[in-house]
Amino acid sequence: MDVNGGSYENDYNHKWKFQGNKELNNASIFSIRSVINLLTQNIDGNTNRPMISLAIGDPTGFKSYRTTSTAVDAVVDSVRSFDFNSYSPTVGVLPARRAIAQYLSQDLPHQLSPDDVYLTAGCTHAIEVVVSVLGRPGANILVPKPCYQQYEARAAFNHLEVRHYNLIPEKGWEVDVDGVEALADDNTAAIVIINPGNPCGNVFKYQHMKKIAETARKLGIFVISDEVYGHLVFGSNPFVAMGEFASIVPVLTLGSISKRWIVPGWRLGWIVKNDPSNIFNKTGIAESIKNYLDISSDPATIIQGAIPQILEKTNKDFFSNIIKMMKEAAEMLYERIKAIPGLTLPHRPQGSMAVMVKLELALLENISSDLDFCLKLAKEECLIILPGVAVGLNNWVRITFAVELPTFEDGLGRLEAFCQRHAKKQN
Amino acid sequence: MDVNGGSYENDYNHKWKFQGNKELNNASIFSIRSVINLLTQNIDGNTNRPMISLAIGDPTGFKSYRTTSTAVDAVVDSVRSFDFNSYSPTVGVLPARRAIAQYLSQDLPHQLSPDDVYLTAGCTHAIEVVVSVLGRPGANILVPKPCYQQYEARAAFNHLEVRHYNLIPEKGWEVDVDGVEALADDNTAAIVIINPGNPCGNVFKYQHMKKIAETARKLGIFVISDEVYGHLVFGSNPFVAMGEFASIVPVLTLGSISKRWIVPGWRLGWIVKNDPSNIFNKTGIAESIKNYLDISSDPATIIQGAIPQILEKTNKDFFSNIIKMMKEAAEMLYERIKAIPGLTLPHRPQGSMAVMVKLELALLENISSDLDFCLKLAKEECLIILPGVAVGLNNWVRITFAVELPTFEDGLGRLEAFCQRHAKKQN
Ligand SMILES: Cc1ncc(COP(=O)(O)O)c(C=O)c1O
Ligand SMILES: Cc1ncc(COP(=O)(O)O)c(C=O)c1O
Repeated sequence: MDVNGGSYENDYNHKWKFQGNKELNNASIFSIRSVINLLTQNIDGNTNRPMISLAIGDPTGFKSYRTTSTAVDAVVDSVRSFDFNSYSPTVGVLPARRAIAQYLSQDLPHQLSPDDVYLTAGCTHAIEVVVSVLGRPGANILVPKPCYQQYEARAAFNHLEVRHYNLIPEKGWEVDVDGVEALADDNTAAIVIINPGNPCGNVFKYQHMKKIAETARKLGIFVISDEVYGHLVFGSNPFVAMGEFASIVPVLTLGSISKRWIVPGWRLGWIVKNDPSNIFNKTGIAESIKNYLDISSDPATIIQGAIPQILEKTNKDFFSNIIKMMKEAAEMLYERIKAIPGLTLPHRPQGSMAVMVKLELALLENISSDLDFCLKLAKEECLIILPGVAVGLNNWVRITFAVELPTFEDGLGRLEAFCQRHAKKQN
Repeated sequence: MDVNGGSYENDYNHKWKFQGNKELNNASIFSIRSVINLLTQNIDGNTNRPMISLAIGDPTGFKSYRTTSTAVDAVVDSVRSFDFNSYSPTVGVLPARRAIAQYLSQDLPHQLSPDDVYLTAGCTHAIEVVVSVLGRPGANILVPKPCYQQYEARAAFNHLEVRHYNLIPEKGWEVDVDGVEALADDNTAAIVIINPGNPCGNVFKYQHMKKIAETARKLGIFVISDEVYGHLVFGSNPFVAMGEFASIVPVLTLGSISKRWIVPGWRLGWIVKNDPSNIFNKTGIAESIKNYLDISSDPATIIQGAIPQILEKTNKDFFSNIIKMMKEAAEMLYERIKAIPGLTLPHRPQGSMAVMVKLELALLENISSDLDFCLKLAKEECLIILPGVAVGLNNWVRITFAVELPTFEDGLGRLEAFCQRHAKKQN
């Protein structure tokens, strides 16, 4: 019986005053997860053909992409020690921060200190922290187009304006530096770069990065360098850490163990200050990062506790084997795309786990957009690839090549069959 | 050389346009972590006396409060299986959600389904999700006074107005239900209750909870029931899950394994819908929770993978031993406080890990506030307890009793010595 004497269960017309949050709906529209759900729903329910996904950077399902036993043993040691069960300090436990400082310093002309390192629950959380720190009325950040959409999603939720600069496919997806200068104004706080690049599979050259640093300096903004794919490179350009240019411009480097160690579920990432002139301290950015972490959850301490062993003990062969497999798949993709009508791949993939492929819609029958292409591909071939719209670039698709070769070949075969079938007849 | 031909290193006057976020400073002021930092800095640097902290609900440092080997083995099995290295679904992996649904259903008249369960990175993250879902211009929530401050901190960051209803110490910290009715208006979305109570150490009676449910229903708002201390009770009132009253009012139950299993570092919690009439679906709350989780990081999958074993296999003796230790300490506290001048404890502690103790400032010499009390206590006795201001209640202090007995006795001895020394001389 309710307060008015009625039965609760039947009282459907009770007036409830609360409601969901429409802004969140806008923010999550950008999420790759929701696009993939949409595609998966389009798979033909009557087929016996196994679904193949070349849509996300998570090869953990393949045996040859298993993480190293060094990492597993490190977590086992950490949890068996009983030393990492307590709440973690806001910024993370010291041994983990020290190990990350040392690990990243190998790529840098300067030596990082543990105080430069903040632990996060993966690079996803690192992005959340940085966007939350910068979000204030009127402020904006510069983000590449195309881009990993988490920046856009978080910025939408935090009312931080996003302005898109172009990556130029004809120049191997280099930053359109002139465009960057034209976009920035007095309310611009930072420029985001992703290197090695997701979704483009490119790797920036040293001189180009220096030019980005100098441009940011001139504009008075700092650089957010997403290096979650750091060291996953196999082309002609070596991986250069943006921290290399920290004497020109302050750099926040974001990263995680998700990709290089193939443990995205473990949720351990970082934000690192590359800032010999202490500009992040002087401008209050460092304090705000700390403050946001104070009101945020932390990465699991048992994984924090495993970080020193993971970073120091992993065998080089583990890394080189992964790189070799990805390079093989990427080369195969590059060669095979040449023969597929309606698709072009402007450059050899150089790194990360995925690459953008261009659709020539004029050459394809009955395909109206990249989303339409991907929906029909899912339905007809049980193959999932990501439509460009999910990374902000229409008429392109993103294909992940961090996939075991037999599966990858099968997937490319389906892609080819689909495009052959939809190719416009030449008169 | 910079773009203008100067040397970067010496260019201290370069104009940087970015700055920290003042709102975050406001939000993190509420954090217990920052208050404890302040107190710890006040410890006399010259003393050899070991510091004792009775300030936070984290007894992992004590050997007798070690987590069960069942939980450790479950994580080891999970990480050694290689089955939980991939990205987790937004809402968490199914076996973990199913296990939590079953675990919580034991306390309920209805059966929860896995779809009612969302996994979070601890209850801290659950609070973040719920506050983010409700935060919109003009909206407000009702929060107890005193309260665990994470609600306040997150609400400040998300521009959700917090209105405080009183917990009444003379009534064993029951909710001031008339006050709740007076506070709510058309923009009120929910009422937060914490049971077993932090910081008060109280446990609500069944009839009182029913009255809260009926009041919420009348007001058209739902209940957020923070049960992170669920089952940690040792007094005359048994633990009742708020979901018991879900036919009266929809309830979101927040919880985690942090407290009952004493693994706060593992960061595994939940939001659970207790809602047989599907009101959270109809009002869009469920969708918004999902959407926020889409743009948020997840709990580590290797811990998600361990949840079924942890919840199903933990020995009852582990729980009863912990309860026994906490009850012993709580009883000792209750008896000893009686003899300490200037302190009163209105009720026997009944549950959770801490209790509020009242300061009679009129009886204490040279103590101006609860913060002053705690600062001087830290300096003179190397003892850290939490000032009431950190949980929103002036002239009280919070003492954690989830502490090994020898340490707890030492701590209470220091507290008594301090109060004796500062007791006003009677004429
Ligand atoms: C560019 C980029 N940044 C960040 C992330 C998130 O990484 P994490 O798994 O560490 O949260 C991803 C994941 O795919 C990514 O591609
Ligand atoms: C009432 C209350 N809610 C939530 C939390 C956070 O719990 P967790 O460790 O699961 O994040 C705490 C921690 O002390 C608490 O006291």
